[in-house]
Amino acid sequence: MNNQDIPDIIISRLPIYLRALRLMQAVGKQTTSSQELGEAVGISAAQIRKDLSQFGEFGKQGTGYDIAFLIDQLRGILKVERVWDVAVVGMGDMGHALSRYQGFSDRGFRVVMVFDNDPAKIGGQVGQFVVRDMKELVTAIQETGIKLAMLCVPASAAQEVTNLLVKAGVKAILNYAPINLSVPEGIRVQYLDPSIGLQRMTYYMG
Amino acid sequence: MNNQDIPDIIISRLPIYLRALRLMQAVGKQTTSSQELGEAVGISAAQIRKDLSQFGEFGKQGTGYDIAFLIDQLRGILKVERVWDVAVVGMGDMGHALSRYQGFSDRGFRVVMVFDNDPAKIGGQVGQFVVRDMKELVTAIQETGIKLAMLCVPASAAQEVTNLLVKAGVKAILNYAPINLSVPEGIRVQYLDPSIGLQRMTYYMG
Repeated sequence: MNNQDIPDIIISRLPIYLRALRLMQAVGKQTTSSQELGEAVGISAAQIRKDLSQFGEFGKQGTGYDIAFLIDQLRGILKVERVWDVAVVGMGDMGHALSRYQGFSDRGFRVVMVFDNDPAKIGGQVGQFVVRDMKELVTAIQETGIKLAMLCVPASAAQEVTNLLVKAGVKAILNYAPINLSVPEGIRVQYLDPSIGLQRMTYYMG
Repeated sequence: MNNQDIPDIIISRLPIYLRALRLMQAVGKQTTSSQELGEAVGISAAQIRKDLSQFGEFGKQGTGYDIAFLIDQLRGILKVERVWDVAVVGMGDMGHALSRYQGFSDRGFRVVMVFDNDPAKIGGQVGQFVVRDMKELVTAIQETGIKLAMLCVPASAAQEVTNLLVKAGVKAILNYAPINLSVPEGIRVQYLDPSIGLQRMTYYMG
């Protein structure tokens, strides 16, 4: 299957389906339908069937989807049947929270390294990690082959740190800094700016 | 202008334009073009012109956009020319980080109240706030008329707390809990789950 053939909007829904299926599995359910999954995620049953059909035939007419099987398929498609190492850069409140976040363990990710440039923080402990000097970032990431980073530095430093991450071989950045990043072709960025999330909603408010 | 007429995908891009324009203004720029703005946000100039044209004529042929004027217009459209009070529920690491987050102040939001249900946390200080008992949530939010909340409780508690927020009159929830929420018509939810952000990117990785 060619990655380029499937619209990103479909890819963006697969993790949401996966999360909902994992929650169903956690409460002991074994099968589900596109209707039921749709109600769980707020997406129409028809859209779910159409999205999943891009990748194969996962359900059976009448009996629906086997949850464990569909989870395996989605984990394979999203490449999270393995565990990805992640670096966290910037040990402010948000970097702290992400370094200690318990929600990655069974979703395909683990934080393995944290960085800051503040001498008062370097060498200190955050969760299970010793904060490393940003000066070591490129070498440390190159040596360990880390491909994912979460960026929690101030907006003013975000592009400069991004350039270092790209130089180090990072291919995907989850950006908490409130600024758009410029990256070379082939590097992916996702943005998690709480103000943007709130502004998307206030538009609709009376 | 009728809110219902404009696709949500367009609304979702306006906060990104606004953020980029604010950064341009911060470095002393006075005018910009759809080309320049497009490069800053990674969206085509044609798309930007099309998006903005939904709301009026903001640019001039040849001279482009007056940044201060366009910022004012976008703040008006997104209803963030005012400051919205926000409650934070759940004082784990993420709730802590958001309660102390400095990035809301000039984006239209301020945290005014924080809640937890843990007796060890209730009454304690987080940033400038005293943590309030979740039992007071409905009354406190009703009395103050808060319409926005950030939800940072565990997935297992998220739906229950959401029901309380809706009961209290909250109209928009920024959800950090890794679970889809069920809300009545007219209530908006935006999701900021870091694992989902990462999974959207690993799909594309070799």
